[in-house]
Amino acid sequence: MNKSPFTLINGVAADSVAVTDRGLAYGDGLFETVQLRAGRPLLLDLHLERLRSGCERLAIKSPTLFDDLQSDLEHLARLCSMQDFGVLKILVTRGAGGRGYLPQVGMAPTRIVIVSVMPDYPHSPAQAGVRVRWCDMTLALSPRLAGIKHLNRLEQVLARSEWDDPDIREGLLCDTEGFVVEGTMSNLLWVRGKVLHAPLLDRCGVAGVVRKRVLQLAAAAGIEVLEGRFGKSELEQADEIMLCNSLIDIWPVVTLDARHWSVGPVTRALQSLLAKDYLAC
Amino acid sequence: MNKSPFTLINGVAADSVAVTDRGLAYGDGLFETVQLRAGRPLLLDLHLERLRSGCERLAIKSPTLFDDLQSDLEHLARLCSMQDFGVLKILVTRGAGGRGYLPQVGMAPTRIVIVSVMPDYPHSPAQAGVRVRWCDMTLALSPRLAGIKHLNRLEQVLARSEWDDPDIREGLLCDTEGFVVEGTMSNLLWVRGKVLHAPLLDRCGVAGVVRKRVLQLAAAAGIEVLEGRFGKSELEQADEIMLCNSLIDIWPVVTLDARHWSVGPVTRALQSLLAKDYLAC
Repeated sequence: MNKSPFTLINGVAADSVAVTDRGLAYGDGLFETVQLRAGRPLLLDLHLERLRSGCERLAIKSPTLFDDLQSDLEHLARLCSMQDFGVLKILVTRGAGGRGYLPQVGMAPTRIVIVSVMPDYPHSPAQAGVRVRWCDMTLALSPRLAGIKHLNRLEQVLARSEWDDPDIREGLLCDTEGFVVEGTMSNLLWVRGKVLHAPLLDRCGVAGVVRKRVLQLAAAAGIEVLEGRFGKSELEQADEIMLCNSLIDIWPVVTLDARHWSVGPVTRALQSLLAKDYLAC
Repeated sequence: MNKSPFTLINGVAADSVAVTDRGLAYGDGLFETVQLRAGRPLLLDLHLERLRSGCERLAIKSPTLFDDLQSDLEHLARLCSMQDFGVLKILVTRGAGGRGYLPQVGMAPTRIVIVSVMPDYPHSPAQAGVRVRWCDMTLALSPRLAGIKHLNRLEQVLARSEWDDPDIREGLLCDTEGFVVEGTMSNLLWVRGKVLHAPLLDRCGVAGVVRKRVLQLAAAAGIEVLEGRFGKSELEQADEIMLCNSLIDIWPVVTLDARHWSVGPVTRALQSLLAKDYLAC
């Protein structure tokens, strides 16, 4: 399947945005990447909840934004066959026009929804596990922007540019103080002594929707969850390591630079719980 | 004068960019804001030098980019009357297409050049001086992105959103460690005991073109220049404070929250040196 993406901008089929859009000028906006399974967006409520929280944090205000996005999604489903696609990207910017950093009062946000095919993830990474590396890039501490999925992503671009070996599937990042945070495109969880460890994302990083769901599912299954600040050595002493995001679901980590792990039972249990949850949601 | 902006995108008159542009998706690009005086771009060489340095830092590679930009500016001058405008904005992104944070090899950067009228700065701020405030927002430490004028500007948007009193012309920012850095849209310089002080911009902030030129002019005029890390109280004990950027030139600060200054002799001397330099460049 090599179907071209299909895009609605402010409810209209289009493929370009105004050059004056603040999303381009300043990265003044937010996005969500949602998995489509048989045309159905997975965990859509959690994605929209994070988007809403991001809009509040950036003071992107529109009384009709979320109703309009709902209409966009319905419109999209009438215009194209959602089953043909694997990814729904939702992008909201503060809107077009004005100049200077001060947002104009009453700007209409720009809404962009795009469906595209699923990226190719060869060699069954969810089953076989993946090889990852430490990045040299560090994430800056920015509590006002931490957690939300905003459009200022140069740190991720630079970090992801550190390697081009396709066998290395992800790079892991620490913050500028040396605490482990996440991957360039995924969140990071690990197990040590039956406890599921998750780095806090209150100073940097993206609070992933799948991360949130997996932590809920783990807690409901009686697995102890510990969110905190951890150093590299704590991660490297883990019994099991995993990555998660909305497209990859959960990937076990089997190689981190020169260290190796087997895929462990908690990772398999969480993969299974998430798969069941997807069937229900 | 209320003339509409005129825009060239990749050399063609246009007003929209591809929705797949990485400038929009990730803020993966750079910009320059250049003052036009009688149609002539001021300090253009310094702007292009910073843009080139930004492209190197972000690994935005194109052997023809700067020749193409030169052609764009010549083309622009043929298509519209540059004398009618006061501002030239140059924006370069890594280009359109691909997906995920990893840049594709051989992407063609997107070039955008826009001319527009000068913003309105009422009440002769360069002459009378301006009122400014401290921002609550702090700038994150990000050495890999410091100094260059990239498109990830949410910190500036949030900082500028802290006030809407039009009598307050700028907000001053410290980094997350409490060192004074810059204004939301300008660089900050001050004089104490005949020494011109300038915050280092190696961990955050934008290394302004006018800042650079003013420091050169000051040094050439025998004024001692000290770049370093300074706290709020060091700024507040200054004899003279000034802001500079490519559109405002140099504005004296006469009020910072509850403190007041007169416009001092070094500020006036630097304004005069910069004005003469503009005539020569």
